[in-house]
Amino acid sequence: MAQKVTPRSKDYSRWYTDVIQKAELADYSPVKGCMVIRPYGYALWENIQQGLDRRFKATGHVNAYFPLFIPESFIKKEAEHVEGFSPELAVVTHGGGKRLDEPLIVRPTSETIINAMYAKWVRSWRDLPILINQWCNVVRWEMRTRLFLRTTEFLWQEGHTAHATPEEAEEEARRMLDVYSDFAENDAAIPVIKGRKSDAERFAGAVRSYAIEAMMGDKRALQSGTSHNLGDNFARAFGTQYLDRNNELRYVHQTSWGLSTRMVGAIIMVHGDDQGLILPPKLAPYQVVIVPIWHDEGEKAQVLATIETITGEFGEAVRCKVDDREEYSPGWKFNDWEMRGVPLRIEIGPKDVAKGQVVLARRDVAGREGKSSAPMEGLLGRVQEMLDEIQANLFAQALKFREDNTSEPTDYEEFKVVVENGFARSYWCGSAECEATIKDETKATIRCVPFDQDGEEGNCIYCGHEATEKAIFARAY
Amino acid sequence: MAQKVTPRSKDYSRWYTDVIQKAELADYSPVKGCMVIRPYGYALWENIQQGLDRRFKATGHVNAYFPLFIPESFIKKEAEHVEGFSPELAVVTHGGGKRLDEPLIVRPTSETIINAMYAKWVRSWRDLPILINQWCNVVRWEMRTRLFLRTTEFLWQEGHTAHATPEEAEEEARRMLDVYSDFAENDAAIPVIKGRKSDAERFAGAVRSYAIEAMMGDKRALQSGTSHNLGDNFARAFGTQYLDRNNELRYVHQTSWGLSTRMVGAIIMVHGDDQGLILPPKLAPYQVVIVPIWHDEGEKAQVLATIETITGEFGEAVRCKVDDREEYSPGWKFNDWEMRGVPLRIEIGPKDVAKGQVVLARRDVAGREGKSSAPMEGLLGRVQEMLDEIQANLFAQALKFREDNTSEPTDYEEFKVVVENGFARSYWCGSAECEATIKDETKATIRCVPFDQDGEEGNCIYCGHEATEKAIFARAY
Repeated sequence: MAQKVTPRSKDYSRWYTDVIQKAELADYSPVKGCMVIRPYGYALWENIQQGLDRRFKATGHVNAYFPLFIPESFIKKEAEHVEGFSPELAVVTHGGGKRLDEPLIVRPTSETIINAMYAKWVRSWRDLPILINQWCNVVRWEMRTRLFLRTTEFLWQEGHTAHATPEEAEEEARRMLDVYSDFAENDAAIPVIKGRKSDAERFAGAVRSYAIEAMMGDKRALQSGTSHNLGDNFARAFGTQYLDRNNELRYVHQTSWGLSTRMVGAIIMVHGDDQGLILPPKLAPYQVVIVPIWHDEGEKAQVLATIETITGEFGEAVRCKVDDREEYSPGWKFNDWEMRGVPLRIEIGPKDVAKGQVVLARRDVAGREGKSSAPMEGLLGRVQEMLDEIQANLFAQALKFREDNTSEPTDYEEFKVVVENGFARSYWCGSAECEATIKDETKATIRCVPFDQDGEEGNCIYCGHEATEKAIFARAY
Repeated sequence: MAQKVTPRSKDYSRWYTDVIQKAELADYSPVKGCMVIRPYGYALWENIQQGLDRRFKATGHVNAYFPLFIPESFIKKEAEHVEGFSPELAVVTHGGGKRLDEPLIVRPTSETIINAMYAKWVRSWRDLPILINQWCNVVRWEMRTRLFLRTTEFLWQEGHTAHATPEEAEEEARRMLDVYSDFAENDAAIPVIKGRKSDAERFAGAVRSYAIEAMMGDKRALQSGTSHNLGDNFARAFGTQYLDRNNELRYVHQTSWGLSTRMVGAIIMVHGDDQGLILPPKLAPYQVVIVPIWHDEGEKAQVLATIETITGEFGEAVRCKVDDREEYSPGWKFNDWEMRGVPLRIEIGPKDVAKGQVVLARRDVAGREGKSSAPMEGLLGRVQEMLDEIQANLFAQALKFREDNTSEPTDYEEFKVVVENGFARSYWCGSAECEATIKDETKATIRCVPFDQDGEEGNCIYCGHEATEKAIFARAY
């Protein structure tokens, strides 16, 4: 019998871990809080990497690599930064059989070690901007971990840029948030809200933090990418200065921005259903699975020959898997690949061969409605068209779901009900006290203050004082 | 004045570090033994990664990711392995502000943590083979480090496979050595000798180790990639067993194989000359640099417009950089890009525009001889042809250099002279004593016992006893 996952509608949290393990995206490791990303999950991550890396390079960024280890004293140079990160650090105290003179921190993020290098590389305005990205692993000691969403070690990219002026740094921080949003919406089919983080949620060491926030299938929020304007905070701590065109010494202004393997968790949670994963075609390791159907050796030869013609036509244009395993029935395979979220299934049996057609089954539309037949002739075009339809439909479904579950409550009583089951878009006076009290009383945090405001004024949902901006409040991962 | 490097002919070692720093491939970091790979060096590594990854996937491998940390007890499970690696380990003793119950090792290589997972994943013969590769960072505490060649942290890929039989494991280990050799010779233009490592040089925990060995520009050897048949050593240590077709429990047979950022060092040392780097076209971040020449604004507009036409024609077919900086002269740019090893330079001035031609300057052929002109019409084809010629020429030059500096000394006295300045190909009786004495007396080690043997018998170059195989002896990095 095919593997089954706990239905999403029954137990969202078990469904999530079930899907990850049964679809072989990842597994628990014997190292506390660390996971193993299995080949199917890693192939998804590789596609995420490619989608981002292409966009980074198109916006003028280059990749580099900085050390895994950071001297403890470096972390301490920026006051807010050390306060934010010290509870989460992993510390190397011994190397080569000896106790180290100065302990080394396994990087939780690389602002400090990178500034140590930028301080050395930057001399004049001619050296700016520096637009560097790094793909790497980072470690943050977490008490409560969850596959992909919160693990002690995770993979990410971290961009670190240095600019001549505050304006350029601000522009860059916003540009990279746009890059993340473009990737999330167009490649991952996840609608996101772009906005500013509140001071309480700001990155330790940043002047301003921005984020893209998405609604998961259980109506909780997930921060899916962040971009920070660091001002000259790290530049001052590390002495990263340049001579401007007038020969005056100035601090650089910096940004950092990151997106991690969390995105895999977002993809699972936004699109999946009771049967398991549903992967957006642009990122799916296999966009199409072909399942042959036969009853005897003669039919088998005929069907497999037809499939060979099809895959020959597909070439590199479609990421396609032919499941010709003998030990499983077609029905078992249908269920298995549905659970694994392959966007489109092609079924071919002897009757199809005779009629010169195939059966197409879309993963995003359940049952009969998702099935259609298509002529063998011109199949590649039809498949690509349908993959585009699936991609667009997944985005549209997710957007509708978010809109259906986002409200603008009229008072705090209604607000408390709303955030139990969705996003509340409410005026906020900007005070940290209101924010903290709301969090205490409802578990909802300010996910972001969206850029998209209507320009009206109103009253803070908690204290009733004047407010000029609405914020998104939600319970979050 | 353009940056100059110490000539290679004058001081090879200083030339090496000069080139790396002035071409901005890498830099020293404030963390002892760890380097920073700068964008130009990282772009080279990305091209190496792509060349390898494509070959891994074509031979049926998939990528995955395993934890950075390995419980100390795991490293100790395979007796030879712990002995080989324990002097080099970096140890995390504290996490999240607390002392850990069991220290964690920062992976020096991942056989142990991966076997902990394979032991869980493998149940039956149907689960085999497992053909997984991982791209990651590893840490080995090194006393004497050297940029790219030996650093405490380095980047690499490590393949880890599990098979049903010893034969399949042996076949895989040899197949991956072939993949490395194909990559080294065809992409990096580095001729390599494939062979078996002596027991003294065998990987800690392997049954047999294989390597590709290359001759650097100073006639020393560099091990450029290794592939190990691990037998069932780790399987026994971790209980990685499967039920065979007869329902009998058997240990898997495994391989591991790795190639690292050392390869960047090899590329520098094999191809570079007194002026600096020479990069093989297949891996060069920029295959072509276009330097415009103008004397006034009118000429500038004309020349840049022509260049735009050319780069438009090149499209994605050639990795091309246009150096239109105003603050440097064409001559300065010529020298600078020569130092940075760009394989082909295109010069375009107003006279060239008028004549509908460009000047091509090959980096691999010095002076006038390397210069030619080519019509603008059909330039892409000519450029691609010339890049192929450069690629082939770099390989041919390196092969000739190795052959010119490889001898078959007739006795040990001659041997001692030969290994001061090249490779000796000599009969070896197979005894560890001869090997050790030779190393003590000459600093030359057995780089490998080449697969390519003539089938003759002879006398050990040291002890004179019967020997059936010749080995390559050399001083090595």
